[in-house]
Amino acid sequence: MPLTNTDVKPLPGIRGFLIDLDGVMYTGDTPVDGACEALQFLEEGGFSFRFVSNTTRKSRKTIAGHLQKMGLSVAESRIFTPAIAAAAHLCASGKGRIRLLLTGDAEVDFPRDFRVRKSDDPDAVVIGDAGDVFTYNSLNMAFRDLMQGADLIALEKDRYWMAQDGLSLSAGPFVSALEYATGKTATIVGKPSKAFFDLALHDMGLTCNQVVMIGDDILTDVGGAQRGGMRGVLVRTGKFRPEVLHNSDIRPDLVIDSIAQIQRIGVADLDNRWGMDL
Amino acid sequence: MPLTNTDVKPLPGIRGFLIDLDGVMYTGDTPVDGACEALQFLEEGGFSFRFVSNTTRKSRKTIAGHLQKMGLSVAESRIFTPAIAAAAHLCASGKGRIRLLLTGDAEVDFPRDFRVRKSDDPDAVVIGDAGDVFTYNSLNMAFRDLMQGADLIALEKDRYWMAQDGLSLSAGPFVSALEYATGKTATIVGKPSKAFFDLALHDMGLTCNQVVMIGDDILTDVGGAQRGGMRGVLVRTGKFRPEVLHNSDIRPDLVIDSIAQIQRIGVADLDNRWGMDL
Repeated sequence: MPLTNTDVKPLPGIRGFLIDLDGVMYTGDTPVDGACEALQFLEEGGFSFRFVSNTTRKSRKTIAGHLQKMGLSVAESRIFTPAIAAAAHLCASGKGRIRLLLTGDAEVDFPRDFRVRKSDDPDAVVIGDAGDVFTYNSLNMAFRDLMQGADLIALEKDRYWMAQDGLSLSAGPFVSALEYATGKTATIVGKPSKAFFDLALHDMGLTCNQVVMIGDDILTDVGGAQRGGMRGVLVRTGKFRPEVLHNSDIRPDLVIDSIAQIQRIGVADLDNRWGMDL
Repeated sequence: MPLTNTDVKPLPGIRGFLIDLDGVMYTGDTPVDGACEALQFLEEGGFSFRFVSNTTRKSRKTIAGHLQKMGLSVAESRIFTPAIAAAAHLCASGKGRIRLLLTGDAEVDFPRDFRVRKSDDPDAVVIGDAGDVFTYNSLNMAFRDLMQGADLIALEKDRYWMAQDGLSLSAGPFVSALEYATGKTATIVGKPSKAFFDLALHDMGLTCNQVVMIGDDILTDVGGAQRGGMRGVLVRTGKFRPEVLHNSDIRPDLVIDSIAQIQRIGVADLDNRWGMDL
């Protein structure tokens, strides 16, 4: 496979982008070549865009700080995470009393007055990748809330992730535990759920046919976006592996070498920004 | 419904009994009327019998001690629990290195040399209603064991139980969590699994058509036994409710007022003990 893809054809009717962060804009603490220029292109081109991350441990402020250290200056309001999606979902559905099972600082992305005291009955239990916050007592409290009528909102339902000391349980198993205990089905608001993409579109004020998702994961990024009616573009950076693309049933609308080629995807819209939609 | 059931007809070919404890032999700390005489009848009649309990927190020794305090003298070897069933299952399948997720003292019912050290790779993870023993770390360790190839053995898969301070998560949700994380299916060795009843039969050296299960739960006791090929007898003590019987698809082979009537179920066999089987 050539290192440089010269076949990138512009996609028509693009007004907005959803762009995965880890593996697309940076890997580890290093920006991908051309990430700065891509950001500049988005700003200057008048596109709507959100950088999406499936982390449930970090607030958008923390994520913006991490990007800033790498020289990527992104407004907090342009970062979209499962916590942001959940807060929007809760506001829209009038569920203003929540119990959080989270670790890290993602809780600051929920309105402060949403959080209930220990003894209160919440409208919803919101559960993320909470690590040591998962105890028998915290899960039992969430279970009792759910049995009292609260909704179950899952920021993600991944099985596990690779921590420094080995494979480690993500939120999914604990969501599954509460589903089994209560007979309820969680509303998943992280990638690749349709809810996540719909809420991100709503946040941008665009419809699915106006937006392209760019990511390095063919399943959660490209497949998820396509199920949500968007176009999905795969980058050959981050976790990209040619054999995964080859063996997948999912066909990206476009495959590009890296985010540096975003200018060639979007060029049609720069010329014809408010013109035709797909 | 009459308090005393005069229609009890003997069941033919009985050589053994499985008898639920809580709700059948006692409630709380009080023996059911006639429980002592039932025990005497079983001993003197030459029947094989096991008292079965689904608790995963108590050793058979602790259970025998509780019975003794109520004046019910039962040999430990006649008490059959999910831990005993699991130990038998593990011995039979040659899985001699286990990680236990248990609370209480049921662990003493596993051979001491079965238990692995923290850093070892076990053949099986055995999980019961472990309460505060369920932590992120203990579940993550079990998860890693399972991903390394260990079997998942569940002492029960109940959703919840009524603790003094309210509904509380049982083993089931945590079993479900590990199943979701690993894609494995647990082998359940507690009631009403067929494995439990099969292991109890094996422990008595009898076949299913020779044995009657007596319990107060139409689903787990009567239904479970019948699915295992046994006959199932329901008592009108403990959790028995006429409407549950009425609304159930499960038809007990016999309904008796209490364990005091066991002598009338088994009388055929007392006369003809080594005669016909069903």
